[in-house]
Amino acid sequence: MQENIKQHAPSVVRPIKKMIDGNLVDAEDKVVQEKAVTIYVNSSELSTIVCSPWDLEDMAIGFLCSEGILKDKEKLKKISMDDEKGLIYVEIEGYEQDLSGKLFLKRYINPCCGRGRASFYYSSDAMICKIVDEEMQISGETVIRLAKDLENKAYIFKETGGVHCAGLASGEEILIFSEDVGRHNTLDKIYGKCFMEDIPTEDKIIVFSGRVSSEILLKTVKLKVPVLISRSAPTELALDLAEDLGVTVIGFTRDNSFNIYTHAERII
Amino acid sequence: MQENIKQHAPSVVRPIKKMIDGNLVDAEDKVVQEKAVTIYVNSSELSTIVCSPWDLEDMAIGFLCSEGILKDKEKLKKISMDDEKGLIYVEIEGYEQDLSGKLFLKRYINPCCGRGRASFYYSSDAMICKIVDEEMQISGETVIRLAKDLENKAYIFKETGGVHCAGLASGEEILIFSEDVGRHNTLDKIYGKCFMEDIPTEDKIIVFSGRVSSEILLKTVKLKVPVLISRSAPTELALDLAEDLGVTVIGFTRDNSFNIYTHAERII
Repeated sequence: MQENIKQHAPSVVRPIKKMIDGNLVDAEDKVVQEKAVTIYVNSSELSTIVCSPWDLEDMAIGFLCSEGILKDKEKLKKISMDDEKGLIYVEIEGYEQDLSGKLFLKRYINPCCGRGRASFYYSSDAMICKIVDEEMQISGETVIRLAKDLENKAYIFKETGGVHCAGLASGEEILIFSEDVGRHNTLDKIYGKCFMEDIPTEDKIIVFSGRVSSEILLKTVKLKVPVLISRSAPTELALDLAEDLGVTVIGFTRDNSFNIYTHAERII
Repeated sequence: MQENIKQHAPSVVRPIKKMIDGNLVDAEDKVVQEKAVTIYVNSSELSTIVCSPWDLEDMAIGFLCSEGILKDKEKLKKISMDDEKGLIYVEIEGYEQDLSGKLFLKRYINPCCGRGRASFYYSSDAMICKIVDEEMQISGETVIRLAKDLENKAYIFKETGGVHCAGLASGEEILIFSEDVGRHNTLDKIYGKCFMEDIPTEDKIIVFSGRVSSEILLKTVKLKVPVLISRSAPTELALDLAEDLGVTVIGFTRDNSFNIYTHAERII
């Protein structure tokens, strides 16, 4: 089914000028790659994503799943790519152009969860997001170990400083790892891989390098993942959504400490 | 002209559980606010932006300028906001719904600058971006001082860890400062303020906390700013665009060093 999905090198070496202690010297630096990729569904332009040019099939599939456009693997007929122009063509059987096109990225104004507090902002989110009620429990040691594991795996970040990373983990270890210049793309790449390979996510944990915005939280909910561990800060809107939708959000994870913002009952 | 643009507190205090050295304790944490804001132009929904809920008028105006939808201050007739729902209504005289609607966020496939190398990805970028040929020169000391100045001003970041920040600077100091959960929004807030107050930008410098992606670079070009100083890493695509469009990109700015990636002739 897959055709022509080319992998790019994660980084390139560029000549630079380096200023050190007032002296300008010639040097080299590894710079991370970035590419604009436009997704077409059944020949219609859907969206352009600026991303890291690897695992592009996973990213496109994950994006379509996350937006509610692709729900059933049987309906996915073909995926191919024009690498030079950065165009990914996806064929989905029975894709209702009009309905999805109308809802895609359209603002949803009603309050969610009947509480009138946190709001979804896209109609597609309101249609897809369900409350996560998994009764998983993990230990504090696991939280710290998984965050450390994510850091150890982030070799493109270590080389270039130009990407975020995310991992899908069991209670033991990170099973799927992704890096991307776009925070959201890291989760779409994981989503796409799980969808294509029928990997269950309800009993897994997301470990993430970046800030937990509402968009990151909503992608976690769509993956049905009950625990989101970040090394960085969450936003208030993300925490309101997490509270209502049943996700445990952990932030500022360090070697010996972390903050539990919502649904602390899952951490023992 | 402005109506009902409410300012929100940058952060809220939330009760959290804190794990320290294996002990779970009750604590509090300041969490940054986040809000979804949908921009309507002449009653049509244009785009939803997830952002920090302050300087929202500047952000909306800057976004519309950056997308080529608003070009002339005389045409801006009204801006108002439904704060509860997060809707901003902008009235622009002579706004051609069909043309802008067609080009907005539509992929642009042709190579730019006649070199077939870096590509714009949106049609609106290709229409707006002009080569920046300002003959500004600044010293290495200025680069380091402005980066330090940005860090000193970032009080919401210091409180919450949840925002990026940007400054528009003269050779002497930062004149306009913005913070936002969204990297791009920081530049839109600056763009909107400059547009509304007729502040020239061609002779200014952007100082930025985050990574320099192609999107950040394109916003800098639209502002006609010749020098972009970041504390973080650039991407390869951003550097290709910067090379072609005439922007000096500086990254990894530290107390005594920085990297000059493109157009080093402006740094003396």
